[in-house]
Amino acid sequence: MTKIEHIGIAVKDLAAAGKLYEKLLNTNVYKTEEVASEFVRTAFLQTGPNKIELLEATAENSAIAGFIAKKGEGIHHIAFDVEDIEAEMQRLKNEGFVLLNETPKRGADNKLVCFVHPKSANGVLIELCQEVK
Amino acid sequence: MTKIEHIGIAVKDLAAAGKLYEKLLNTNVYKTEEVASEFVRTAFLQTGPNKIELLEATAENSAIAGFIAKKGEGIHHIAFDVEDIEAEMQRLKNEGFVLLNETPKRGADNKLVCFVHPKSANGVLIELCQEVK
Repeated sequence: MTKIEHIGIAVKDLAAAGKLYEKLLNTNVYKTEEVASEFVRTAFLQTGPNKIELLEATAENSAIAGFIAKKGEGIHHIAFDVEDIEAEMQRLKNEGFVLLNETPKRGADNKLVCFVHPKSANGVLIELCQEVK
Repeated sequence: MTKIEHIGIAVKDLAAAGKLYEKLLNTNVYKTEEVASEFVRTAFLQTGPNKIELLEATAENSAIAGFIAKKGEGIHHIAFDVEDIEAEMQRLKNEGFVLLNETPKRGADNKLVCFVHPKSANGVLIELCQEVK
């Protein structure tokens, strides 16, 4: 893992949260993107080598809607940048971590992603992500 | 803000969590430190330009103990690196954010820190931190 690629934050209102995080980080949302397969709309802000990904549900069966219903708005996941996602998935499986995806899937921001079960990591939902070249 | 300095994760058992995150991140805990004023013991791991800070309560009145009692183990805060914490605190106050500290206080890992109220930031506890030179 080479760095924290982004922190995913579950929000109710993407436009309002985008404005708030623009003030907080003193930078602009540089991209918004809908990931239809995940029922989310996302907005990205950059801070040095890292990003903040704001996530708004687009449907009631979205994982983000479920998260907010259960825990309220807040940090949803940490994503780590990896160079070879399949090798990293195999390494983690060998170490006993439970992966939520058998194979990498397409995520937002031109990434291949895989999630690690929060029960494997002290309640933290971990995402591995590899940039698609 | 120049980068995500670290992610703080509240854990029940620092030694066990340290071993687990060593496997996850494929690196070693490089420092453990007790912050007596905050009633926490911490362990740090590095991933590229960023760190993971594991936090274990050392007393029942620790904010970390309260967090775990309410929400369980998981991500407790995001810390952003700043070059001039007092200027950044003033900028955020002017933008309407509620700060939890009137003046910077001494945190773990040789930092001056200030927290922003989670109600100001979609449920996310934000820490500003400036390295003490």
